[in-house]
This record gives sequence, structure tokens and C-alpha cells, in this order.
Amino acid sequence: MTKYSFLSPVQDGIQRVEDRMRSQAEGYHPDIRAALDLLLKSGGKRIRPAITLLASRMLGGDEETSITLATAIELLHTATLVHDDLIDSSLLRRGSPTLNSQWSPGATVLTGDFIFARAAKMAAETNSVEVMKLFAQTLTTIVNGELTQLFTNRCVIDREDYFKRIYAKTASLFETSAASAALISHSDERTRTALQHYGYDIGVAFQIVDDILDFTGEQSTLGKPVGSDLRQGIITLPTIQYLQDHPDDHRAQQFFDQGCTSMNGWLDPLIQAIAESDSITKCYQVACEYIQKGIESLRKLPEMPERYPLEELAEFIVGRQV
Amino acid sequence: MTKYSFLSPVQDGIQRVEDRMRSQAEGYHPDIRAALDLLLKSGGKRIRPAITLLASRMLGGDEETSITLATAIELLHTATLVHDDLIDSSLLRRGSPTLNSQWSPGATVLTGDFIFARAAKMAAETNSVEVMKLFAQTLTTIVNGELTQLFTNRCVIDREDYFKRIYAKTASLFETSAASAALISHSDERTRTALQHYGYDIGVAFQIVDDILDFTGEQSTLGKPVGSDLRQGIITLPTIQYLQDHPDDHRAQQFFDQGCTSMNGWLDPLIQAIAESDSITKCYQVACEYIQKGIESLRKLPEMPERYPLEELAEFIVGRQV
Repeated sequence: MTKYSFLSPVQDGIQRVEDRMRSQAEGYHPDIRAALDLLLKSGGKRIRPAITLLASRMLGGDEETSITLATAIELLHTATLVHDDLIDSSLLRRGSPTLNSQWSPGATVLTGDFIFARAAKMAAETNSVEVMKLFAQTLTTIVNGELTQLFTNRCVIDREDYFKRIYAKTASLFETSAASAALISHSDERTRTALQHYGYDIGVAFQIVDDILDFTGEQSTLGKPVGSDLRQGIITLPTIQYLQDHPDDHRAQQFFDQGCTSMNGWLDPLIQAIAESDSITKCYQVACEYIQKGIESLRKLPEMPERYPLEELAEFIVGRQV
Repeated sequence: MTKYSFLSPVQDGIQRVEDRMRSQAEGYHPDIRAALDLLLKSGGKRIRPAITLLASRMLGGDEETSITLATAIELLHTATLVHDDLIDSSLLRRGSPTLNSQWSPGATVLTGDFIFARAAKMAAETNSVEVMKLFAQTLTTIVNGELTQLFTNRCVIDREDYFKRIYAKTASLFETSAASAALISHSDERTRTALQHYGYDIGVAFQIVDDILDFTGEQSTLGKPVGSDLRQGIITLPTIQYLQDHPDDHRAQQFFDQGCTSMNGWLDPLIQAIAESDSITKCYQVACEYIQKGIESLRKLPEMPERYPLEELAEFIVGRQV
């Protein structure tokens, strides 16, 4: 995201977060450094630490503490991805090889655990018990969501269930990225709640856009086949919207009647039909509404000159490649 | 350990720790409850929470906080075992089926993660930033130890290396079980250091005894084949001591010259020779010296009437089934 002007106030901060992440391996087994290097090289948008740094800056929080907090957030995110990719046997993430594609399952599990441990350490180093509690709760929510998806959430065509799932998967950590910045800045409760809502809303929008891109993106950009969620029986908003808009699509009906199991040659045309339908536009509108709601949360607070980068970051989310 | 008199002051507390562990699943995916039930049913000595509860009682710590802390400790221990058994493909622990023997690898990884998250939550609920930092550091030490064992610590015949390994594997969490009780009891630094040394020393002794039992125990009691460490190329104190005492054992020499790879029929006689040697007695003496050192640490503190159960617990460690 280096080219985006709203990030310029925290560009140095994000660099320091990356350095801090890399330094977690110092004094430990050398292969941990190799793993962290691999994980950091594959990049990522660093949108969560950007939220934390921008929010903390807006609220006048201590800069050093905000760097520590943002590092904790991104380490937590990274650890969940490491285990996630292992469980899904993913070979690529953001076009780069995953850790599990190069390391044994055991080494991958332990590297994820190591990064969890360092995330907990960074969270503790903010010296805020409230941050620690929020962190632990967020990790619980994320992992419970993954377990639920593993056990029961395949082939569920239900809007409410979808929003629960994306809260666990994405919005909960966005919420924590914003709300914990208010905690370390010793903001009042009203401010904390506004930041929490901002994080939640833009997190929901972020995941909706991700789920749209899973249909409309190119395989080369996605680093995975187009429609990969649907291929695994994971029903996201574009599919739910498409089924609502096209109740007469027999291919789709048959797919769901068969419990979302493979349809051989049938699935590709269905994925293409969803991608080209106006249901995609409707999903995009839903994402935009969440972004607008998130921005409104900030605007209800007393005017703060450093608010605008957070608004621009929110708008960037719905602007990316849709 | 219910039959041991030194536990009677904390018997109710240990029951409450188990109840608190079980309650971590409430409100989350039902299979988490099944997993926690399975893990709790397989028992365990609960020696770590016993240390925390007894130490906190001795130091006049708040009882509720000590229950929360002891729950955090035992959850952390349980989570590391869940991942450990998965990585080692162990089918039994303490004679009961492991989680990975019944669940998919993905579900096992995530259940371990869930338990880590709840351990972090309980640690945060002690409202002590120092406890949180100690927790995160201990988890880092344990995981780094496991990674090191996975990558490089096979077939290493070195006493210093052995003590480093058992610090990571066992003594670090014993140390934390005792030292964190001092933290929540707001004890002075001298007391905290004494408790830390006590935990370290009895933790080292505990692991040495475990490593002795791996040779001298019965397969039915161990829940794994006799000599299982050596079979995996993990060199523990009995083997190191045996090699020092019997430099002329050619079977042993050949085994190590071949990088601790299988020797077909040769390994069983070697394991039996170690088990029947006087090197075992020497290892037992080392464990007893650590226990004595741990007890001395406590005795240097001003006389506290509730000190004796901690001394008896230490003595129990070297008394068990050797």
C-alpha cells in the first residue's frame, strides 16, 4: 500500500512494525528467522497495523506503544494464516509459497505457535491488561470461527450465518486493531466504541470485497483458482445474493441439493455466471454501505485533524480492484 | 494425586481449576466441549496448578486470582500437549487416546489454538501485566525448545544440551507456575526469586524422573513403548550417564555412530542394559539433588507455616514409581 497518500503519516511506523516482526526470531532457533523472512517477504497489505497506527496517531497515543501494539496485531494475524494455510493445504498466499508448502506439518504448527507466543508478548508489552483481554478474546473468536467452518459451515446459504462467519474471520481483528488503539491512548468510552464500530464495519466490507474478488479476480492475482470458496463448499455473499436474484438457475439448485459436492463440468459455468451477474454489483453496494457506516462512526466524534487518513483507508478498501 | 496429604489444602482448588478448564468451551462450538472433556478425562497429575495454588496460599495471595492463574497454567500445558501429540503422531497419553488419534489434523491444530487463546484469556484475567509477560515468554521458550528438537536435537549426547532441553520442555513452566504465584501475591523480589528457583529445580527433577521412567517403567503404565525417547533418537540423562559409565559398550557406540538410526534387534538389549544399569541410580541421585536444592530455596525465606506442602510436593516428585 506504499503508494497511498493516506499511509504517509505512518509509513515509517509500518516499516518499524516489519522490523519488529522480523526481530522476534533473534536468539531463537535459526529456522524461525528463515520462516519469518519467508512470511514477511510474501508481503500483505499491512492494513491492520495501518489502522492501529493511524487510530493511535489520531487519538494522541504514545507512538512507541502503538508500534508494539501494531506488531502484536500483525503477528497474531500472521500466526492464524500460518495454521490456516496448513489446514487448507494451501500452496500459495498472495502469489508466494506458503510455509506448509516448504516445511513439514510439525514445523509449520510450531512456527505458528511461536508467532502466537510473540504476539502475546508484544500485547503484554503494551502494559495494558485491557489490550491483553481483547487480544485473547479476538484469538478465541477467530479460532472458534475456523473450527466452526471446519465442522459445520459448509454449504450454508444464510446471510446471517455469513455475517457471523466474516466477523470471526476478519472483522473481529479489524475491530481489535482500531479499538485497542483507543485503549492504549486512554480514550473515553465513547471514542473507544466509535473506533470499535469503525473497525468492525470496514472489516466486514474488507471481507465482502475479498469474497467478490474470489469470483471476479484473475487466478494469477488471487494466487488460487477463481471461485475457490464455492469449490470448497464455502458460501459467501456473492453466491447468496445470486441465489436470491436467480431462483430459477437449475445448475445452482442442483449444486446445493447435492450438498455442494463437485458437479464436474457444471461448477465453472456457475462460477462464471455469478461473476458476470448484477448480484456482484449488489454485493459491492453492501460493502460500500459498511464503509460509509464506518466513516460515520468517526464523524460522530469531536473533529480531529488526523481523522482523514482513516476515512481514506476505509474508502481504499472498496476501491481495490473491484 | 488425590491421595497425597500435601494436596489436601488445595484439593477444592484443583477441582475448581478443572471445572474452570471445562467451562472454557461454553458458548463455543460444541465439539470444543467434546475435546476438552476428552482431554480432562485423560487426567494428568495437575502438578503445575497444585504448585501455583500451594505457593499462592503460602504467600497469602488472593484465592480467586490463584484459581484463575492455575487454570491459565494448566490450559497452556494442555495446549502444548495437544500440538505435541499431533506432531509426534502419538496415539496414547497417560493410557488414554490422544485428540489427534480421533480427530483430523486440522481440528487438532485448531483445538490447541483455542486452548492457547483461553490460556491467554485466563492469564489476562489475573490483571497482572507481569504474569502476562511471563506467560508469553514461557510459551516462547517451550515452542522454541520443540522446534529445536524437531530440527536439530536428535542424537545429541551432551549433558549441557540435555539440561537446556528439559528447561524448555518442563522446567520453564514449573518455574512460571511458582514464580507467577509470587507475582499475583505481590511478594518482594527475594521471595519471587526463591519461588522461581524452587519451580526450576523441581521441574528439572520432574523431567529427569520422567526420563528414568521411560526406561524403567512398564509399557502399560507409560502408555508408550519402553525406551521411546531413544527409539526416536532423543538422548536423555539415563543414556548420557550410561555412555559415560560404560564407554566400552559397542552396541551403544555403533548406535551413535549410525546417527541414532534404527538397529533392528539391537536397540531392545541396549534399552534393557540402560534400564538395569547403576547409571539409573546415578540419575535418580541427580534428581534428588535438584529436589533438595528446590526445598533449600524455600527454607531461605522467612518461616511460613504453609511451606510444608510445597516441600512434600517436591519430595513426591522423586518418590513416584522410581
